[in-house]
Amino acid sequence: MTPLPPGARIGMLGGGQLGRLLALEAARLGFDVHVFCPEARSPAARVAAFETVADYGDVDALGMFARSCDVVTYEFENVPVATVDAVIAAGCPVRPGAASLDVSQDRLAEKAFLNGIGIPTVDYRPVPDAAVLAPALAALGGRGILKTCRHGYDGKGQVRIEPDGTGLAEGLRLAASAPCILEAVAPFVREVSVIVARGEGGTVAYDPAENVHETGILVRSTVPAAISAETTDLVAASGLRLADALGHVGVLALEMFVLGDGRLLANEMAPRVHNSGHWTPEACETGQFEQHVRAVAGWPLGPVTRHFDARMTNVLGEDIRRLPAGLGKADKATAYGKRAPIGGRKMGHIVERVPLGALAQAAKG
Amino acid sequence: MTPLPPGARIGMLGGGQLGRLLALEAARLGFDVHVFCPEARSPAARVAAFETVADYGDVDALGMFARSCDVVTYEFENVPVATVDAVIAAGCPVRPGAASLDVSQDRLAEKAFLNGIGIPTVDYRPVPDAAVLAPALAALGGRGILKTCRHGYDGKGQVRIEPDGTGLAEGLRLAASAPCILEAVAPFVREVSVIVARGEGGTVAYDPAENVHETGILVRSTVPAAISAETTDLVAASGLRLADALGHVGVLALEMFVLGDGRLLANEMAPRVHNSGHWTPEACETGQFEQHVRAVAGWPLGPVTRHFDARMTNVLGEDIRRLPAGLGKADKATAYGKRAPIGGRKMGHIVERVPLGALAQAAKG
Repeated sequence: MTPLPPGARIGMLGGGQLGRLLALEAARLGFDVHVFCPEARSPAARVAAFETVADYGDVDALGMFARSCDVVTYEFENVPVATVDAVIAAGCPVRPGAASLDVSQDRLAEKAFLNGIGIPTVDYRPVPDAAVLAPALAALGGRGILKTCRHGYDGKGQVRIEPDGTGLAEGLRLAASAPCILEAVAPFVREVSVIVARGEGGTVAYDPAENVHETGILVRSTVPAAISAETTDLVAASGLRLADALGHVGVLALEMFVLGDGRLLANEMAPRVHNSGHWTPEACETGQFEQHVRAVAGWPLGPVTRHFDARMTNVLGEDIRRLPAGLGKADKATAYGKRAPIGGRKMGHIVERVPLGALAQAAKG
Repeated sequence: MTPLPPGARIGMLGGGQLGRLLALEAARLGFDVHVFCPEARSPAARVAAFETVADYGDVDALGMFARSCDVVTYEFENVPVATVDAVIAAGCPVRPGAASLDVSQDRLAEKAFLNGIGIPTVDYRPVPDAAVLAPALAALGGRGILKTCRHGYDGKGQVRIEPDGTGLAEGLRLAASAPCILEAVAPFVREVSVIVARGEGGTVAYDPAENVHETGILVRSTVPAAISAETTDLVAASGLRLADALGHVGVLALEMFVLGDGRLLANEMAPRVHNSGHWTPEACETGQFEQHVRAVAGWPLGPVTRHFDARMTNVLGEDIRRLPAGLGKADKATAYGKRAPIGGRKMGHIVERVPLGALAQAAKG
């Protein structure tokens, strides 16, 4: 792939915070960014050179967008496949490619793919309609997390069902509304994730982070994770294998459960930069956003060497109004430029970086 | 000063690369940036949420611009004072303030101010017209650098005159065209500069950098400078004194000559982020661009702790087309998004960062 020179134009499908942070890094490397998003003045568009406001199904708008760009990427995995096809049909490459989208848009396809390449997941059953929820539950011992196969994020589109019937009524409604998957509840002791980049020069994995979720939303990522060197290597190897198997170009994230007996189970993947990698720009030689831009632009990947231990905390909802008060001296703040701090919406994040080894010591102490 | 919350709007007078890099950091902190620049689609405007394309003398456009912003800053010191006055008249604060602009826009005023606060400069003589060039030269021993008092940059608007008459004809033309200053040629062994930030929480100085110029253009900055701890402290103290004396809010740069006998003479100042500070985002806890945004937004300044040794090299003219080829593994590239790589125009820069102490060792070895 001939590297794009500074001045080339990178198209971005989607206008959220991940697109914004990608656009900032693209600009730092001298690229112009063209954001395609149905919402006008989106967080990404407000830092981009060009903006198209149109529906993801608007083939004419997509054609014009594609012809103005040298390469197109996306900042969320639920971009319709037809949208990507329209861009490709107009002659513009899309990176990452179709396989990464196909696999990650459907939880069933994703689980099958992961297991197929030797990365075990939790046990699961397809629930194509409400009628099969009961037998699926029975097969998993009466307990499970029912999720829509498509379009879920941040705990939306899912419900936990217990043997005592808790969540069952809601689950039946969910299963009636869309094809679902019932996942066994993993008896995990930790959640970890690995950010992987694949591009010119190979495939590289950042150090795995340990994640804490509340009500389905990531609240904190810490690196290093409090896991053994052996587990660390296995998490990284899983991410690398996934990226290679997909022929992925760009950054992806793989979330995994660490069980009490040390086993690892894949939870889910995202074919893009990821919230649990927001510590990388502050702590590593090359951050995940720059890395993704490098990969899709055909530049050689940068080193992922980590220079600091780090703790990333999401800033949710109204808390964004309290910046900069409460920022510690070692805190790096990022805010997403979203207008309405509704509910628990992700509005920004804070990275505390400390000398290498400091957090590992704290975890042991 | 009440800190501006994320979502507030920062106005930027000027659309060049410094404005672009400031706008990127402002966006990362959640601010919207509004760029005011006579040139459409300037490097800064292409990463900003709002753009006004108008002349710096267009009072109506300035009024509308000012009323849309919570604070206005500038990315170059030659913004007309009347422009700043129009923004202030429309009710919007401008940071840094008028004193910093007044002093830095005129080389005579700047030298007088520096000497007045105990920061010695090279000897100099005013050359208000061509008739006084000869006596001024005689007073400085027949040799000097004649510079226009206003609007010079990157070696433009200046000519070196030698006792043998070299440069004299050009000097007479220059002196006839605009009020000038004749500066003695400093017998320096090194050029250094210090980046200083003043804002909430005080005034802080980054480690001084050592600079190499060619034909008036900065080509390389290295930190640490190969100077003694005593000289380092004196450079930093000079910068801090200058920022405090100006009541400056934001970042400024002070360039100094180190003479063979160890004495320090101020060369010039810039009331803004500076090319010789482009290593700070890669090497320090807080980079100069974020620091300036923090200062003008009323946020507490970040730490200037340096984590790496660094060498910053400007990418001039056509060399920008050679990115990313030739980038070393430890190199961080920044490109400015300028369209035409004419002549020696600054198109980007590369920062090589290495472990603390590595460059100091190399300088000694």
